[in-house]
Amino acid sequence: MKIIKCFKILLLLVGLFGLSSNPALSQFQQDPVISPEFKEDGSVTFRIMAPTADSVKISGNWMAGWGSSEKLTKGTEGLWELNISDLNPDYYNYTYSVDGVRTIDPHNPWVIRDVRNTFSAFILPGENSEIIQLSDQKNGTVQEIWYPSPTLNMDQRRMKVYLPPNYNDSNEEYPVLYLLHGGGGDESAWTELGLANRIMDNLIHSGDTKPMIVVMTNGNPNQESTWHVAPGHKPVRESDSQNPMATMRFEESLVSDVIPFVESNYRVKTGKENRAVTGLSMGGWQTQKLALNYPEMFNYYGVMSMGIIRESQFAMNAQTHLELTNQNIDNLKESGYELYWIACGTDDFLFDSVIHMREVLDGHDFDYVYRETGGGHTWDRWRLYLSEFAPMLFQ
Amino acid sequence: MKIIKCFKILLLLVGLFGLSSNPALSQFQQDPVISPEFKEDGSVTFRIMAPTADSVKISGNWMAGWGSSEKLTKGTEGLWELNISDLNPDYYNYTYSVDGVRTIDPHNPWVIRDVRNTFSAFILPGENSEIIQLSDQKNGTVQEIWYPSPTLNMDQRRMKVYLPPNYNDSNEEYPVLYLLHGGGGDESAWTELGLANRIMDNLIHSGDTKPMIVVMTNGNPNQESTWHVAPGHKPVRESDSQNPMATMRFEESLVSDVIPFVESNYRVKTGKENRAVTGLSMGGWQTQKLALNYPEMFNYYGVMSMGIIRESQFAMNAQTHLELTNQNIDNLKESGYELYWIACGTDDFLFDSVIHMREVLDGHDFDYVYRETGGGHTWDRWRLYLSEFAPMLFQ
Repeated sequence: MKIIKCFKILLLLVGLFGLSSNPALSQFQQDPVISPEFKEDGSVTFRIMAPTADSVKISGNWMAGWGSSEKLTKGTEGLWELNISDLNPDYYNYTYSVDGVRTIDPHNPWVIRDVRNTFSAFILPGENSEIIQLSDQKNGTVQEIWYPSPTLNMDQRRMKVYLPPNYNDSNEEYPVLYLLHGGGGDESAWTELGLANRIMDNLIHSGDTKPMIVVMTNGNPNQESTWHVAPGHKPVRESDSQNPMATMRFEESLVSDVIPFVESNYRVKTGKENRAVTGLSMGGWQTQKLALNYPEMFNYYGVMSMGIIRESQFAMNAQTHLELTNQNIDNLKESGYELYWIACGTDDFLFDSVIHMREVLDGHDFDYVYRETGGGHTWDRWRLYLSEFAPMLFQ
Repeated sequence: MKIIKCFKILLLLVGLFGLSSNPALSQFQQDPVISPEFKEDGSVTFRIMAPTADSVKISGNWMAGWGSSEKLTKGTEGLWELNISDLNPDYYNYTYSVDGVRTIDPHNPWVIRDVRNTFSAFILPGENSEIIQLSDQKNGTVQEIWYPSPTLNMDQRRMKVYLPPNYNDSNEEYPVLYLLHGGGGDESAWTELGLANRIMDNLIHSGDTKPMIVVMTNGNPNQESTWHVAPGHKPVRESDSQNPMATMRFEESLVSDVIPFVESNYRVKTGKENRAVTGLSMGGWQTQKLALNYPEMFNYYGVMSMGIIRESQFAMNAQTHLELTNQNIDNLKESGYELYWIACGTDDFLFDSVIHMREVLDGHDFDYVYRETGGGHTWDRWRLYLSEFAPMLFQ
C-alpha cells in the first residue's frame, strides 16, 4: 500500500510538473519500448518485451495470405525485434503471437477492430499514404447519430454521417453518398478501417471531389449498432443467423428510413441525381439489390469486390440474384443512371463472380465502367476504390 | 495457397448463407472461447486460450491498488479460467499477463485506451449500471468536429460535441456544459472512459437533467487532437514537455476560440447563466483557473478530484495557484455564480489537496457545495460525479 501511494504521488508529480525518467512510471508516462518505429530508410521496426517467451511471431496485413507470419529475434533483456522494409506507405494492422497466444502490440496504443478481432494499427508515412493522412486544412465532421427504423421495428439504429469541411460555414445543400460496409462489418467500419472521412477531406481539399455528405449505415438489419454500443453487450455472432445478404430488409430500411431521415435532418439536395451508393463485398451485393429494386433512387452505383456468384458454385440466393438481375436490369436501363461502376482486384476470391456479373450485364447491353486492379479482398483496395469513385460523383 | 483459397471460399459461404461450425472459421465467425461471460449469479468468468503458458494473471480496475492481479487456473486443452463474483454492475477494464507479457483479452473485441495503454472492457449489466447502458429511447448525437484555434496558433483542433436527443427535431436553443478531462487524457476520454453521452442520454430521458449540449475539448494546448488522429502519428509522450497545468494557454483558448465557435455553430443559449464547466484532476485544476481568471464566463463550476496542492508538498505552480486563488476569489464572489461544486473521494491521492482548497475558500467565506464520496482517483467516481453535477445545472 505504501508503494502504491508513493507511485501515485510520483504520478501526480508527472501530471503537475512534467517530471519523468523514473522507471516506475513507464506504463503511464513513457514506454521505453518504441513499437512500431519508423526508420529514415522507410523500414519499420516492431518490438515486444517478452523475456520468458520461446517464440514471438508477427502477422501483418501486408503479408501474402491469411495466417502468414514472420519470426522476431530475441535480443538483450528479453526484447524481441524485427525490422521490415519495402512496405508501401499505407494504413496497416498486425498482431503478435507470443508462444502461440495472439496479442496486440502492448507498446502501441492504436488498436482497431475488424469484425470480432482486434489489431494494432499504424500509418506508414509517405507519398502514397497522403490521402489517408490527416489534412492540415479544416476537416469535415463525423457524427454518430441515431435514427428511427420503423421498417426494421427498431426505435433507433446508429449510423455515422460525414459532413464536408464547410458544412457549418454556408447554407449550401449537398448531395449524398451512401457508403456500405461488408459482411461482419458495421457502421464503424468505413471510418475505422476505411478512413473514409480522411479520404473525403483530402479529395475535397484538392478539388478532385465535390463536397458531399457521406452516410455510413449498419448493413445488418438485425443490429441496432456496432455490437458493443448496443444494450446488453450483444456480440455480433448472436445475430449471424439472420443473413443480411439473403433478404431485402436492409435495402428497404435504407430507402424507407435512412434516406428520408437524412433528407429531413441535413441540408441535402434531394432527387435521384443527388444520390450515390457504393459498397464492398456484402455492401456491393446490397448496392446491386438497390439498383435492381429501386432504380429511381440513385444516379451513381459503385459495386466493389462483388459480382454475381455463379449458380453452379452456390445454389441458394445467388440463383435468386441472377434471376432478379435478368428480370430487373432493363428497368434500370430504362430508368437511367449516370454511372454504374464495378471495381475488383484480380486476386480477389470473388473475382470470378465479377466476371460472371459482367457476362450477365453484357447480355443485356448494360452500360457500366469496369475498373480492374491488382490485389485482393482487402481494405487497401476499398480505400483506393473510394478515392477513385468519389471524384466521379455529382459532376 | 490452396488452403487459403479454400478458407476464403468457406468465409464466403459464411457471409453469403450463414453456414458455420467449421473450426477453421473460428477467428472470423465464432470464437469458441467466450470471455468475459456473465453468469446468472452476477459473477463473471474470464478465459484465455494459452496452452503452453506457465502462468496467466488478470489485472482489473475493480481490484484494490495499481498492479494487483489474480491468477487464472489452467484447465483442459490449455484454456485458462477465473470466475470473479461480488462485482458491482459497472463499466470495467482489465488485461492479462501471460508469462509476464501484458495482453488484452484476445477473445473480447471491446478494447479501450486510457492515456497510452489499451485494455479490454465490459459493462456488467445490473441495476447500478443502468445509467451507463444504452437507452432504448432516442439517443443524442456525438460529433467529432474541428475548430480553428488562433490562440494556440493551430488551424484546427478536434473536439467532441454531444447534442441532446431532440436537437434535430426542434428549434430550441440549449445551454452548454464544458466537460474537461484529466492529465494524459484527450477529447476522447469522456466518451470512451466516461461514457458521458450515455449518462447524459439517460439523465435527460428520466427528466433528471435539462437537455444541454456537452463540449469535450482536448485540454493539452500543444495537441491538435488525440495523438493517433494527428498528422505524423505523434504519440502523446512527445508533447509532455509542455505542461498544460502550468500555463493558461488551454483556458485562454477555451474562452477565446472554443466558446465563440460553439456559440456560432450550434443553437446555443449564450451568456454566463447558460454555461457550466467541470473537469476531473487536471481538468479540475483548469476549472479553478477558469473560475479565477474568467469570473464572467460561467455560472456553474464542478471541481472533481482536485484541490489546491499544499505548497509544502509541491513548490512550483501550486504556490502560484494558491496566490491566484487568494487574489482572485473575491472577484468571483463579486461577479456571482450559481454553483461551485467540489467532489472528491476519501481514498483519492489528491484528497488532501481538496481539504486544503476548502480551507483556503473558507478563509474567504466563499460559498461552495462539497460532496465527499468513498473511492479514489478513478473513472467510476467521475461518471458518478457527472451524473450528480449535470442535474443541478440550468434549473
